[in-house]
Amino acid sequence: MSRTELIDIPSLTRLCIEAFQHAGLPAEHAEITTSILLEADLMGISTHGAVRIPVYTQRLHSGGVNRQASIRVAKNAPSVAVVEGNNGLGTVVAGKALEVCFEMVADTGIAYAGCRNSNHFGALAPYALRACEAGYVFIGATNASTTIAPWGGKDTRVGNNPLCIAAPCPDGMHFILDMAMSVAARGKIRAAQKAGSPIPEGWALDGSGRATTDPSAALKGFLLPFGAHKGSGLAMAVDILSAALSGARFLTDVSSWSDNPDAPSGVGHFFLLLDPDKTIGSVAFAAAMERFKQIVLTTPAVNPEEPVMFPGQREQERRRAAMDKGLTLPSDLLASIRHLARRQN
Amino acid sequence: MSRTELIDIPSLTRLCIEAFQHAGLPAEHAEITTSILLEADLMGISTHGAVRIPVYTQRLHSGGVNRQASIRVAKNAPSVAVVEGNNGLGTVVAGKALEVCFEMVADTGIAYAGCRNSNHFGALAPYALRACEAGYVFIGATNASTTIAPWGGKDTRVGNNPLCIAAPCPDGMHFILDMAMSVAARGKIRAAQKAGSPIPEGWALDGSGRATTDPSAALKGFLLPFGAHKGSGLAMAVDILSAALSGARFLTDVSSWSDNPDAPSGVGHFFLLLDPDKTIGSVAFAAAMERFKQIVLTTPAVNPEEPVMFPGQREQERRRAAMDKGLTLPSDLLASIRHLARRQN
Repeated sequence: MSRTELIDIPSLTRLCIEAFQHAGLPAEHAEITTSILLEADLMGISTHGAVRIPVYTQRLHSGGVNRQASIRVAKNAPSVAVVEGNNGLGTVVAGKALEVCFEMVADTGIAYAGCRNSNHFGALAPYALRACEAGYVFIGATNASTTIAPWGGKDTRVGNNPLCIAAPCPDGMHFILDMAMSVAARGKIRAAQKAGSPIPEGWALDGSGRATTDPSAALKGFLLPFGAHKGSGLAMAVDILSAALSGARFLTDVSSWSDNPDAPSGVGHFFLLLDPDKTIGSVAFAAAMERFKQIVLTTPAVNPEEPVMFPGQREQERRRAAMDKGLTLPSDLLASIRHLARRQN
Repeated sequence: MSRTELIDIPSLTRLCIEAFQHAGLPAEHAEITTSILLEADLMGISTHGAVRIPVYTQRLHSGGVNRQASIRVAKNAPSVAVVEGNNGLGTVVAGKALEVCFEMVADTGIAYAGCRNSNHFGALAPYALRACEAGYVFIGATNASTTIAPWGGKDTRVGNNPLCIAAPCPDGMHFILDMAMSVAARGKIRAAQKAGSPIPEGWALDGSGRATTDPSAALKGFLLPFGAHKGSGLAMAVDILSAALSGARFLTDVSSWSDNPDAPSGVGHFFLLLDPDKTIGSVAFAAAMERFKQIVLTTPAVNPEEPVMFPGQREQERRRAAMDKGLTLPSDLLASIRHLARRQN
């Protein structure tokens, strides 16, 4: 069993910022990256949290990611911008895109910023949360290197591109739907492989396009999209909105950071903000969302012990608890972050 | 066996316009409604085509839908509008919303129009096709009366809300992903009930939330969303973007036009247009989409006789064929449209 350690948020934040600064990241970029990653940990999305710091810093050291990225924003219309990431960390590029959206939406009621020449940017929910806290409806997505076959195909040509749609609620527990396009994540298949257990049918195909329950065959094959042709089409739609529209690489042109850690990924993302104050007014929208949530949460449950949840509820409840009591991380992860931060303790 | 009849598009168009005018619709509204419905037929989406004319006209006659609707547009920001439908036909309200989006997107590069107090507006793909033909990326959706239970629940509290994402391609065969949120449409379950055959597992739950393969039990129960919690969440997201944002009715507040044909549905829709000319330029975007489509269409197929398709390809191929040779409709449907148009032949 791996050991774990409880650490308070301010200490962990300082540690992570130092680790990124020692990897050559400017203070401002170290701060935004840390805040996005730790926000994912707070929400319980630990696959997209501090666990990424060793890989992020390794890619900064090797030059796979540009540590001194100079992000440029092209605003070709009052509500539309393209952010050239200069191969910086995705967190830094996306952070800039969100900032630009905040500026534009205040003027025009809606804003789109697409990013190109970017890299892994963590989870979507932390960005969505910021938009909700500022009172905006949020749509955001990113593409990724290919792990899914287009429906009916037997070659990985689409990424497991996550999409997030979020809306602010007056009680502060916002609607945050954050989902990738596969039935099950590759991480779950890797876990089954480790455990020596089969995977359920419907998760993946083997290399020749046949259904398989063997995790090793699945990892050499493709993830199946959720909802068959629907998830497959949605993954393509995300690639268009995130990458084709912003001039980023898409589909098979995206470079895998795990296969080629020293090469730019060329990933694309987008954020879209909408101001409810410019549609029906923020007061009316708050009342609508309050009623909306109440209708969903009062749905009788199939299993009375598992009440119907609001999208993002579990993550936001975890976040509230973790804000107070801190985060429990694997001891070896904390040790390597401390090492990267050149701390002795 | 029901008989069918081949009719050319200009004749059918005149007939449908007359049917709507005899139901009290102004000429302009009769024309837009006809063009949207017949576009669906051309694409092979016959469930959302001329087959709706008897119901649409019946609701116009009974006052369930306002035949003299005065549509009002509130533009509270340069790129955001809310369209008050005055309980008009959804086709008329949505037609106005698309028109307003075309005006706004030209100025700001992006535009959102939400509709409220609207009704059934046909299929989404015809609107998407217009946006693509004008060179815009399109996102559109509508809510609907409830047929789906939120994931884990046993009461229908979300509609089978369709979502469409589309992007123009230089060869005129555009990316058009148009999908509803259930694994299978209610129509398919009704067909199984008629045929006396069971439905596949995973399509629906019975009234107490248990899995069922009995179509009658399924019709008294709920449709299952595609991708479990993902489709359930996406249906809610569509309801927020279409209705909560525009001041329309949402979730259980939407009135079912089939249960209450004489009452306003209060449905909400939205369209969002994005101008690629304002992101990377329309020439670069056209080249990107050409490459995008080529990567998808050259994916080796699992079954060589079923090549991988581009979303919307089948519908657009059908449309091209039907534009030339006309539409084959059930004779009894044509007879009732002729009757509504007060034609003898």
